[in-house]
Amino acid sequence: MNSSDFILTPWESKGDIDYTRLVERFGLNVISDDIRRQVADAAGEDHFLLRRKIFFSHRDLDVILHSYQNGPGFFLYTGRGPSGNTHIGHLIPWMFAQWLQSRFGATMYFQLTDDEKFYRDSKLSLDDTYNLALQNARDFAALGFDPDKTHILINSQHINTLYPLAAQAAKKINYSNTKASFGFGNDTNIGMIFYTALQSAPCFLEKRPVLIPLGVDQDPHFRLTRDIAPVLRYPKPALIHNIMIPSLTGSSSKMSASSENSAVYTTDTAKQIRQKINKYAYSGGQESVAKHRQLGGDTQSDVSFLYLWMFFEPNDSKINQIKEEYESGSMLSGELKQILIESMVTYMERHQNRRESVNIKEFMFDETEYKNKMRR
Amino acid sequence: MNSSDFILTPWESKGDIDYTRLVERFGLNVISDDIRRQVADAAGEDHFLLRRKIFFSHRDLDVILHSYQNGPGFFLYTGRGPSGNTHIGHLIPWMFAQWLQSRFGATMYFQLTDDEKFYRDSKLSLDDTYNLALQNARDFAALGFDPDKTHILINSQHINTLYPLAAQAAKKINYSNTKASFGFGNDTNIGMIFYTALQSAPCFLEKRPVLIPLGVDQDPHFRLTRDIAPVLRYPKPALIHNIMIPSLTGSSSKMSASSENSAVYTTDTAKQIRQKINKYAYSGGQESVAKHRQLGGDTQSDVSFLYLWMFFEPNDSKINQIKEEYESGSMLSGELKQILIESMVTYMERHQNRRESVNIKEFMFDETEYKNKMRR
Repeated sequence: MNSSDFILTPWESKGDIDYTRLVERFGLNVISDDIRRQVADAAGEDHFLLRRKIFFSHRDLDVILHSYQNGPGFFLYTGRGPSGNTHIGHLIPWMFAQWLQSRFGATMYFQLTDDEKFYRDSKLSLDDTYNLALQNARDFAALGFDPDKTHILINSQHINTLYPLAAQAAKKINYSNTKASFGFGNDTNIGMIFYTALQSAPCFLEKRPVLIPLGVDQDPHFRLTRDIAPVLRYPKPALIHNIMIPSLTGSSSKMSASSENSAVYTTDTAKQIRQKINKYAYSGGQESVAKHRQLGGDTQSDVSFLYLWMFFEPNDSKINQIKEEYESGSMLSGELKQILIESMVTYMERHQNRRESVNIKEFMFDETEYKNKMRR
Repeated sequence: MNSSDFILTPWESKGDIDYTRLVERFGLNVISDDIRRQVADAAGEDHFLLRRKIFFSHRDLDVILHSYQNGPGFFLYTGRGPSGNTHIGHLIPWMFAQWLQSRFGATMYFQLTDDEKFYRDSKLSLDDTYNLALQNARDFAALGFDPDKTHILINSQHINTLYPLAAQAAKKINYSNTKASFGFGNDTNIGMIFYTALQSAPCFLEKRPVLIPLGVDQDPHFRLTRDIAPVLRYPKPALIHNIMIPSLTGSSSKMSASSENSAVYTTDTAKQIRQKINKYAYSGGQESVAKHRQLGGDTQSDVSFLYLWMFFEPNDSKINQIKEEYESGSMLSGELKQILIESMVTYMERHQNRRESVNIKEFMFDETEYKNKMRR
């Protein structure tokens, strides 16, 4: 691997991601000012994740807007592979998805792929990943989704609905396609090879266009889905991609749910959050206070700043002030960390309360209800 | 392909099958006189399909007998890919399975793989194969299975139970394994690649040993299952194989459910049966009556004789008399065909009555009942 090379697949992230090259490599459409304005107009308000280009690229977002304004509307779909507790890297696209639901009144299907993580990780049993899925589901539901319009599917539990849809997709995807998209080889297990069909399946839950807010690493799955959707007489799923969220220890690699100190989890206590940020959060500050006062900090690589930028400080004037002060050297790395910690602790305490009190049953996909709805 | 070469996989049958070479190639155990006697002793009677070596090879049949006599017993599992109507090639192993159930009191799981046939055949929809599965299920149930001990699973309908078991298998089978077992390649769709895991799944419905009566073409699936069963802490599935049933038009290739004139179906009328046998049944007789009287007929290749031998004439002295008369030339090809037609028409009329009157619901796999039973 060349030093400037990077790898990004749904299961691997290596090297510094060069987004300009990623856009080329994946064939993505960068979100233009024009389409961002159109989204804001249709939504009735702007969203800071779009403004700050955390959601930076798309496929067919214009088709979704057109269907919303002139057609049958659209539904939302996103998901999570339950390999561990939820971390703030997951909350970012979900928060954005919740905003989309609230502004556009869209039905949301949320898929927890317990089978995928079971296939992928030799140490995890299907019971393990299922139990993690139930925990992850609470985090998702706690974000304010409308229970009447939100349906959480767990692959192993809702396979009755998902398998016939996955089968339609699987018939149109051959081994070559998965080799090219995911780098599979002779030693890849057949669960993993089939799995992409199950990630495609929710796109076919309704005959209307679907918009999928997701991390850009998941794009290869849906490139396959987009290739086959017209053959199955469904609209191509539209995508809106967020950049990868940096791990606690550095901005270059993707945050991982399986490495304890690389992330802040929604289950962390205030004390743990304080410790993690103080101890592990990669700092863009200078080696000494004197040097920092003189040269200022680097907001491009400072993880505390990036977390505020990407999630915890939606207010533009506040984040710009922090940026200015940190870059000018008037704000020290420790002070920046305190701002993040305060914001994070407040957020997590509120989130944890919601997480405990949420009635998860209200959100679980109901096969009978779905069948009746589809019959109408 | 060398003229003496042949291909036999679950989806392809080419050339004349040389069973001596197949035994070597697949690594099968020919059923010895000794083990045949043991089966008869345990069952309390002999079966003509064993005596006539239609069931000719096995894997771990001795383990099953031991478990029946000294251990936790065993259960039965077999299945069918619903690509068309049921033909007599299917009835042979099912009839034998019914005998096994009645003699050994064993629970039977019967799997209808509507997904497999959907993956395999570009012209069939999942609705098509599901509807065929329901038809095939009637034929199976009509053979006299005990409804209390017989559970029919249709993959697309009982995937809730089957998928978690298939997932355990799929995690242990890689692409190389399926390539080696089935000759899969880059253009194989990922449904087909995954499918073998679903055919394995019923082996894991109970923790006891399972005996699978099946056509020898299906052996590759279960070689894979046998490799992984110990890893999943299940007994290796035991197999008892029947030879391929000749198609109407010749003894060399396997009967196919998708070619109208290559088989007699359980849905054929008496008139259709008469026409098919008279017109298409490959005859081992001589070109002229004079020559036939002189040289006699060839019972090795005569399809009418073979159908009587394999299914319609279980009585040894009767079949031996027919053999003698046909080989000596005293019985003509047309006379032999009349014997088969009479026997077939009688059988089919009775079968069709049973088929119509059978209460298929009594036989369908009940997930709740299964879960409760497993909990005990």
